[in-house]
Amino acid sequence: MRVYNFSPGPAVLPEEVLRRAQEEMLDWHGTGMSVMEMSHRGPEFGEILTRAEADLREILAVPSNYRILFMQGGALAENAIVPLNLLGEQGLADYVDTGIWSQKSITEASRYGEVVVVASGKSSGYTRIPPESEWRRSPDAAYLHLCTNETIGGLEYHWLPEPAYGVPLVADMSSNLLSRPVPVERFGLIYGGAQKNIGPSGLTLVIVREDLLGRAHPLCPSAFNYQVVADHASLFNTPPTFAIYIAGLVFAWLKEQALPGLSALASMEARNIEKSALLYEALDESGFYRTAVEKSDRSRMNVTFFLPKEEHNAVFLAGAKERGLVQLKGHKSAGGMRASIYNAMPKSGVVALVEYLAEFERVHG
Amino acid sequence: MRVYNFSPGPAVLPEEVLRRAQEEMLDWHGTGMSVMEMSHRGPEFGEILTRAEADLREILAVPSNYRILFMQGGALAENAIVPLNLLGEQGLADYVDTGIWSQKSITEASRYGEVVVVASGKSSGYTRIPPESEWRRSPDAAYLHLCTNETIGGLEYHWLPEPAYGVPLVADMSSNLLSRPVPVERFGLIYGGAQKNIGPSGLTLVIVREDLLGRAHPLCPSAFNYQVVADHASLFNTPPTFAIYIAGLVFAWLKEQALPGLSALASMEARNIEKSALLYEALDESGFYRTAVEKSDRSRMNVTFFLPKEEHNAVFLAGAKERGLVQLKGHKSAGGMRASIYNAMPKSGVVALVEYLAEFERVHG
Repeated sequence: MRVYNFSPGPAVLPEEVLRRAQEEMLDWHGTGMSVMEMSHRGPEFGEILTRAEADLREILAVPSNYRILFMQGGALAENAIVPLNLLGEQGLADYVDTGIWSQKSITEASRYGEVVVVASGKSSGYTRIPPESEWRRSPDAAYLHLCTNETIGGLEYHWLPEPAYGVPLVADMSSNLLSRPVPVERFGLIYGGAQKNIGPSGLTLVIVREDLLGRAHPLCPSAFNYQVVADHASLFNTPPTFAIYIAGLVFAWLKEQALPGLSALASMEARNIEKSALLYEALDESGFYRTAVEKSDRSRMNVTFFLPKEEHNAVFLAGAKERGLVQLKGHKSAGGMRASIYNAMPKSGVVALVEYLAEFERVHG
Repeated sequence: MRVYNFSPGPAVLPEEVLRRAQEEMLDWHGTGMSVMEMSHRGPEFGEILTRAEADLREILAVPSNYRILFMQGGALAENAIVPLNLLGEQGLADYVDTGIWSQKSITEASRYGEVVVVASGKSSGYTRIPPESEWRRSPDAAYLHLCTNETIGGLEYHWLPEPAYGVPLVADMSSNLLSRPVPVERFGLIYGGAQKNIGPSGLTLVIVREDLLGRAHPLCPSAFNYQVVADHASLFNTPPTFAIYIAGLVFAWLKEQALPGLSALASMEARNIEKSALLYEALDESGFYRTAVEKSDRSRMNVTFFLPKEEHNAVFLAGAKERGLVQLKGHKSAGGMRASIYNAMPKSGVVALVEYLAEFERVHG
């Protein structure tokens, strides 16, 4: 029996994808081999990689002057790899602080150059994204960094900064990439760990505008030098082949989810708006549960909420688990609850959670 | 139908491991989740990680003053990560050049400090490992680096340098780790990509003596700083959870392979001696096939050989494929053929290859 898995990541994957991986585990397409056993330079894996990249380029409408790189280390490694590749001679970058993930980016980047925090949600207790009017940007920054979805706090940008100064926009999209359409052409670089909407952990996606290649610091490891990775079509070092295969199956699944007349990502966005609205409405109407994030900045991916009393938490989680609703505990730094409802969480899972919320309130409210 | 897969890596995995992964794909141990969908901080994955580390420590007899780190980026990333972590104030390291993989290590390390090539197989065309009497070591080196098995050339150390000068020994064991017992206590650090004898690509094992932690260069990314990774028990960044799970299944499989009265690795070594001897004897006795590597330095993992005429290669490979013997083509820089016969290659695969060698010789010899 499968559960409804609200894990923030690694997270639920489409059941169809897992079933396909299961079927093909010992013999991929009549080759007599698992994908895990294939040379990364052979024609079979070449087909998997080429298809995955082409599907991602199509789904996300990645312009032809952007390279798609399949890398390793996750967003925490990218927090160093980005400045190692992009800080260049300026040696200065702007960062927006909207919570724990952008703070981690800031801390790591500060080791490589001057980091200017152009705006911070700290004074609001990280319950809102500072509006652009409050940002104090540096005209000579090598780039401006933001985290488009704060997985722990549960905040998400539903707007983008105006293009200004010609400063490239760099975004950690680990937890909302592929959950909605993104105007890639507005960014210099997009990165994200795969383990939310894309595939297994151990795979990092980087989408980078070609003019930003070739600026790496002399001490940047070759395996993490965007120019080197691009020149070798993600095969400089052995890539995480099985994770790329699963991501490719997810991309194919996404294309199958397209509603009539809508793109795959517009369709996912419509579903994600519906699912998150269902949950937020239930929380807002209850008078029992409490949310902290400003309505305009609420994440569609990670819905954070609190019970009236701390001592209710353990009872709530135990009852949820009995009903097959798992991994709902909030991050230890945030407390409370967090329901991560990525692309692969079916609406039925959200409905089941909403029913449980009402039931728990009736008993404990 | 499964083939006999002689890929140099990613490489054949034990069929029992793949079947288990297949069974558990949608529901690991009654959790209702795939391992890919589990939070890396939850108790379920915690159990998988703890067990994998304990089994590896047992199998390899890793002393208690060594840390086992599950990392990412493969050996090519480690070629930078090792000097970033270990070069320290000396800024000088010794490297032994035995072929393409040690050359890659040397090239990358040279970007971080002074690299002394203490011996090279170049003058022999990389057909032998320079004996220790020829090494010109630096007494003040931060470490001495060697590649214990050259996957492309097909050379393997069957001895270890004498401990001297107190210089830590650092070894890239990507392609022979877990194929034989190793006196870990003779090394300062052992590293390897998983995709030969261990598991899927995207996982890197690092085994490091504790006194070598805490020396990282200020610009070493935190995710690749051995001290940081050790302090977080391989959970600083999200690890490649599914790859660790598969590696754990391989470790359990290795324990089951132990012959009566022998350790798991002594048993694997006995099998690997038998398999490689079978193949080398067939090559030596043929008078048709040619090998290049000195007998004393032949790899048990990667058996390289040549046909008398270049134009035979395509015919040989096509005939092999018809018989279910795949991925036998030598590396493009080496030419000829390469049969990689890691732990998971059954003896029956080697027997089938030996039969085909004889058959091909009868027709074309």
